[in-house]
Amino acid sequence: MRFLTSGRSHGKALVGIIDNYPSGIKIDISIINKELGRRQKGYGRGGRMDIEKDKIDIIAGVNNDISTGSPISFIIENKDWKNWKYRKEEPILNPRPGHADFTGFIKYRLESIRDVIERSSARETAARTTIGAFAKIFLSALGIKIYSYVKSIGNIGLGNDFKINNNYNLVENSDIRVPDPYIETKIIEEIKKAKEEGTTLGGSFKVIAKGVPPGIGSYAQWDRKLDSKIAEAFMSIPAIKAVEIGEGFNSGKMKGAEFHDEIFYEKNKGFYRKTNNAGGIEAGMSNGQDIIIGATMKPIPTTRKGLKTVNILSKEKEVSLKERSDICAVPSASIIGEAVLAIVIANFIQEKFGNDNLVEIQENMENYLKYYRNI
Amino acid sequence: MRFLTSGRSHGKALVGIIDNYPSGIKIDISIINKELGRRQKGYGRGGRMDIEKDKIDIIAGVNNDISTGSPISFIIENKDWKNWKYRKEEPILNPRPGHADFTGFIKYRLESIRDVIERSSARETAARTTIGAFAKIFLSALGIKIYSYVKSIGNIGLGNDFKINNNYNLVENSDIRVPDPYIETKIIEEIKKAKEEGTTLGGSFKVIAKGVPPGIGSYAQWDRKLDSKIAEAFMSIPAIKAVEIGEGFNSGKMKGAEFHDEIFYEKNKGFYRKTNNAGGIEAGMSNGQDIIIGATMKPIPTTRKGLKTVNILSKEKEVSLKERSDICAVPSASIIGEAVLAIVIANFIQEKFGNDNLVEIQENMENYLKYYRNI
Amino acid sequence: MRFLTSGRSHGKALVGIIDNYPSGIKIDISIINKELGRRQKGYGRGGRMDIEKDKIDIIAGVNNDISTGSPISFIIENKDWKNWKYRKEEPILNPRPGHADFTGFIKYRLESIRDVIERSSARETAARTTIGAFAKIFLSALGIKIYSYVKSIGNIGLGNDFKINNNYNLVENSDIRVPDPYIETKIIEEIKKAKEEGTTLGGSFKVIAKGVPPGIGSYAQWDRKLDSKIAEAFMSIPAIKAVEIGEGFNSGKMKGAEFHDEIFYEKNKGFYRKTNNAGGIEAGMSNGQDIIIGATMKPIPTTRKGLKTVNILSKEKEVSLKERSDICAVPSASIIGEAVLAIVIANFIQEKFGNDNLVEIQENMENYLKYYRNI
Amino acid sequence: MRFLTSGRSHGKALVGIIDNYPSGIKIDISIINKELGRRQKGYGRGGRMDIEKDKIDIIAGVNNDISTGSPISFIIENKDWKNWKYRKEEPILNPRPGHADFTGFIKYRLESIRDVIERSSARETAARTTIGAFAKIFLSALGIKIYSYVKSIGNIGLGNDFKINNNYNLVENSDIRVPDPYIETKIIEEIKKAKEEGTTLGGSFKVIAKGVPPGIGSYAQWDRKLDSKIAEAFMSIPAIKAVEIGEGFNSGKMKGAEFHDEIFYEKNKGFYRKTNNAGGIEAGMSNGQDIIIGATMKPIPTTRKGLKTVNILSKEKEVSLKERSDICAVPSASIIGEAVLAIVIANFIQEKFGNDNLVEIQENMENYLKYYRNI
Repeated sequence: MRFLTSGRSHGKALVGIIDNYPSGIKIDISIINKELGRRQKGYGRGGRMDIEKDKIDIIAGVNNDISTGSPISFIIENKDWKNWKYRKEEPILNPRPGHADFTGFIKYRLESIRDVIERSSARETAARTTIGAFAKIFLSALGIKIYSYVKSIGNIGLGNDFKINNNYNLVENSDIRVPDPYIETKIIEEIKKAKEEGTTLGGSFKVIAKGVPPGIGSYAQWDRKLDSKIAEAFMSIPAIKAVEIGEGFNSGKMKGAEFHDEIFYEKNKGFYRKTNNAGGIEAGMSNGQDIIIGATMKPIPTTRKGLKTVNILSKEKEVSLKERSDICAVPSASIIGEAVLAIVIANFIQEKFGNDNLVEIQENMENYLKYYRNI
Repeated sequence: MRFLTSGRSHGKALVGIIDNYPSGIKIDISIINKELGRRQKGYGRGGRMDIEKDKIDIIAGVNNDISTGSPISFIIENKDWKNWKYRKEEPILNPRPGHADFTGFIKYRLESIRDVIERSSARETAARTTIGAFAKIFLSALGIKIYSYVKSIGNIGLGNDFKINNNYNLVENSDIRVPDPYIETKIIEEIKKAKEEGTTLGGSFKVIAKGVPPGIGSYAQWDRKLDSKIAEAFMSIPAIKAVEIGEGFNSGKMKGAEFHDEIFYEKNKGFYRKTNNAGGIEAGMSNGQDIIIGATMKPIPTTRKGLKTVNILSKEKEVSLKERSDICAVPSASIIGEAVLAIVIANFIQEKFGNDNLVEIQENMENYLKYYRNI
Repeated sequence: MRFLTSGRSHGKALVGIIDNYPSGIKIDISIINKELGRRQKGYGRGGRMDIEKDKIDIIAGVNNDISTGSPISFIIENKDWKNWKYRKEEPILNPRPGHADFTGFIKYRLESIRDVIERSSARETAARTTIGAFAKIFLSALGIKIYSYVKSIGNIGLGNDFKINNNYNLVENSDIRVPDPYIETKIIEEIKKAKEEGTTLGGSFKVIAKGVPPGIGSYAQWDRKLDSKIAEAFMSIPAIKAVEIGEGFNSGKMKGAEFHDEIFYEKNKGFYRKTNNAGGIEAGMSNGQDIIIGATMKPIPTTRKGLKTVNILSKEKEVSLKERSDICAVPSASIIGEAVLAIVIANFIQEKFGNDNLVEIQENMENYLKYYRNI
Repeated sequence: MRFLTSGRSHGKALVGIIDNYPSGIKIDISIINKELGRRQKGYGRGGRMDIEKDKIDIIAGVNNDISTGSPISFIIENKDWKNWKYRKEEPILNPRPGHADFTGFIKYRLESIRDVIERSSARETAARTTIGAFAKIFLSALGIKIYSYVKSIGNIGLGNDFKINNNYNLVENSDIRVPDPYIETKIIEEIKKAKEEGTTLGGSFKVIAKGVPPGIGSYAQWDRKLDSKIAEAFMSIPAIKAVEIGEGFNSGKMKGAEFHDEIFYEKNKGFYRKTNNAGGIEAGMSNGQDIIIGATMKPIPTTRKGLKTVNILSKEKEVSLKERSDICAVPSASIIGEAVLAIVIANFIQEKFGNDNLVEIQENMENYLKYYRNI
């Protein structure tokens, strides 16, 4: 599975093409639209979320709700477009610190920062969420499921010893995807406070994949490692500044004897571990445990108060652009995290079990798991 | 620049091929060997470091010490090879938790874990250090330099407010690459203690690139971002479990108003920032500031005491393999971090300024910088 | 520049996304639509060409008629779609020999050959013609132009010693893109005859690129050769069965002393050749001469009379599907040949001179040509 | 399977690395050396063939003669190296027409054409023949075999209606790989004559793959077609100027009713065809028939008599370089054609049936064939 996306934040539509998606997969479009809705939810999102409920329109690649093996293309209309269509504006020349504005204007020798803003916008992630939804539908047919939750926003969050224990319904019922009502309340207050201050908040979240068979990814060459490709994908989500696998940033403080997940065997369970500090990945390969990824998001750069900047051409001091924006987008980022994890895993699954047709892939995977269980 | 590496830990040699390396670059082989030496240094490294001082032998691609534009191949002999050559051994079937052993054996349907150990070994990083040295030589001719230091080992480390202030000679003079003699002493004691306990230690390090022009990488498509490719490369270093850009993991706790690096201009300095929380990368592009990457390494899985495991075939309980190994390899990992950062940046430089010849690339880059300075 | 296309032959629309197209290029949409028109022309095309005059709708990536550096997406509506929308049909199970039908049905485990037909259709080439038009606009700004003509259809064609001598207006004025009125007339009769017989015709064409600087492509690694990538691109055009560079298939009969293009120099002309048997490419690199590519197209598989085949499921003998189709599409194929040659050359130009902005690329190319002229 | 090669014609050695080669494959090194010997054979080859009998030395990736799944590296020593080692020479500045000399010198801004000659040399194909031998060994374990023969040299050759009818032993017994003793004799005379004249000869050859299952490659996206990748690979062989699939260049002259391979079914044979004009590939996919590729090689550019050229720096008229060289290398090229076809097919097989282990791939392929036979 590979893909390209296109689309301006306030243009007609987002467009995506997915190539090499297996045939024979039932595509329920309401599942995809639900994922788009999950991305848009979240206390602290700005006004735009009210304007549009994203919905995809599949142009090709799916026939009678079944994928055909041909490239899938889709469109997500920007409902906001008509408001922008005839807008004339002066060139924007005051770059927002923390955004693509300054460097993008230089790199592409543009005349207005507008052309940067429109693409570097987080709106692009609606397209990736869609592609992730296709990946999830495929993985789901193989028994692989993806979950996420928000771990912290600003200075408030779940403790390092927090265990979610499969209580993902707590997440889905929370406005900010935090599976602890007490912490949730405290965070919402924090967001309100930030809004009053005219500032923004970042935070952190976890994404988990369950049911991934052992042995996708490889230690054999540096660029075939599962954890590398996951890190690449998460760091490509706008505003993400850190990525960790399993205990990640804590791992440096633990000793070998306590960190590593010892290996056990019982006849009815097969091989198993009692811990999962590795986050399901050892030496670039899935080891059969849950894959657990953590990511940290910086605070949103567009603040109501603005930040100090200069006019790129005149060099005069200015205050940065203050377009309509969110206070905190960490809950949305966790959904995008699910999408990119699904895409990466789907790719490694296809590499190991085939690309063409769901039934063929299922058979090949089952064949492999039978071998594994009987080793 | 692209490359492949090959080689077993105890085989004849490591082999590497670098394709698309520009012509016209003076290759001083002593610089490369010095990098290999830097990788091997470090209090807490095991006996192997004494056995071999790695040295490369260039097979092709460099003529009269000048790169020719043709693919470069090199060999690093394993001096230890003769000791292993005629060794006969029973199949190894007790996988080390934390290593590739278990899953690699399954994935490739092997008969002994030996075939996994030999490739998933950190020895492979000598080849990548070599390739990184080639990248550094190229970047150096463009005024781009790479540095690193160790930030923490186990529970001991530099404070979050530590600033290195260009004191990189403190790093190079330290046995463990820690630029603070007091902390260094405490860490060395910690390593001694870990050795006595038969356990191992992880830690964290920083890698810095100076002189990178603004505008490499792109926000335009998810897989063309500089930070993504850096995260991919760092996560591919054995035992790395977390990667951060700039303030990374702290960024989630900071508010928009304090995190973002405001933009200023002065006639003789051009555009500049007073802070660098973004670590030199905004929206997937270099912004002209130092690029600062942090990474966390888990403790080494091969411990003298061994860990609980099972025989993959008989399923009997066993203790994991206890081959000669290190207590702590964080200082070495920081050198490999330099190498992979150099490789990623070199690739983005070539993408923007050309691939073929150093003088041509220098001219194209100078032309771009002139435009930038006069915008 | 990289791209993906999507779209069914009778679906809503074709969709394309072009990534990494330089910024600062003036996009005149009428130029693109003209290319789409050139693809649709040609005596011997079926009824569909009358139904639709293809027109593109740019969704993103171009602002105020200037490319922005962000991914370009476009749509070409299928005007024929409404006629197909509510069509119910039985599964198609009688594969057309020469088409994707048989193997595509097997490979993707489909229920009707319809899902193969819809994608393997030559309609996809409208999307590639569009992308080629973008490539041509870019190349044109660098002084590089692409031309083509039809050399033969069926058994009738121009002699091997035919020289076009820049008379490309003869081509554009011909209904079948044959630059010789006498041969043109004979070919049109041949097409009429084939139509009466219920059969189809193939043929051959040439594509020429003028103004390509010496030194794109490389001999250094097998997969970086200009001629290889050209061969790949031409062979990917539906129904193309042979590709040649320069004298190509004749070259095997010529002796070294007569084949190779000797090198001369005159002060006001610089280096030059008196012949161009190599077709402008030596050892995988452009040598500064016209690049000349030849390709052969097999006869169209969908014939009015049908061909012998079997029902894939019942195994009963059947006659192949007889959908509305063309008698001969060689003139169209020559336009698609222009498109794919433009795309390949644009990619190599970007590799050598940069990806980001037209002015930057122009400056880098000019800088290189200055060096070349003064060597 | 992907690979890089490196090595100068007169340097120490050729080096190759193959990544992603499946584990569990028995590697008989004598098979590989035999392939290297086949490449070196052929009436009309120059003196070098006598100097060295190429032999590979495997550095890593194979253990106890079984592939391990780790990258394979190998070396082929240049026996001729010692003769060259201490050779001092003036810069070479008179480029050979037809070679990389002129453009390579410009592109890489070199000081002597020597650095071009050394890499653009056909010697590189020994490395690719080796990689092709690995691919053949893998394919052979899946029942896929590769053959070739020389069709013509200069103006003499087999008729267009020649059928080899599996008489490949005639090829292997011929000095010039021509499976017709009468034609063989005439060609050898032609080569003698060319030698006397101080000129060189080209020609054409065919490569055939038997046992390829239907359904590798795809029509779904332009760059996933089997014939495209084959055309790319063949055109990358030095001196190849044309590539055709099946009837290729003749196909343009045939009518639809006679060209296309009609489809039949018999219970004990399954689906079959009575003709194979398509050369086993329809719409970018294998269709289960023999894959038949033709290629044309231009005459060797290095001629004893020399060709007209100029000194690149002084611009004085000169005669081109006359290094030791062959009169005709078409028989060798056919062996390299086998190698590159094997590599391309192996890649598509891995894409469809998995990458990791031979037994797993065999099982997945068998599973697919069972489905195909029972459709």
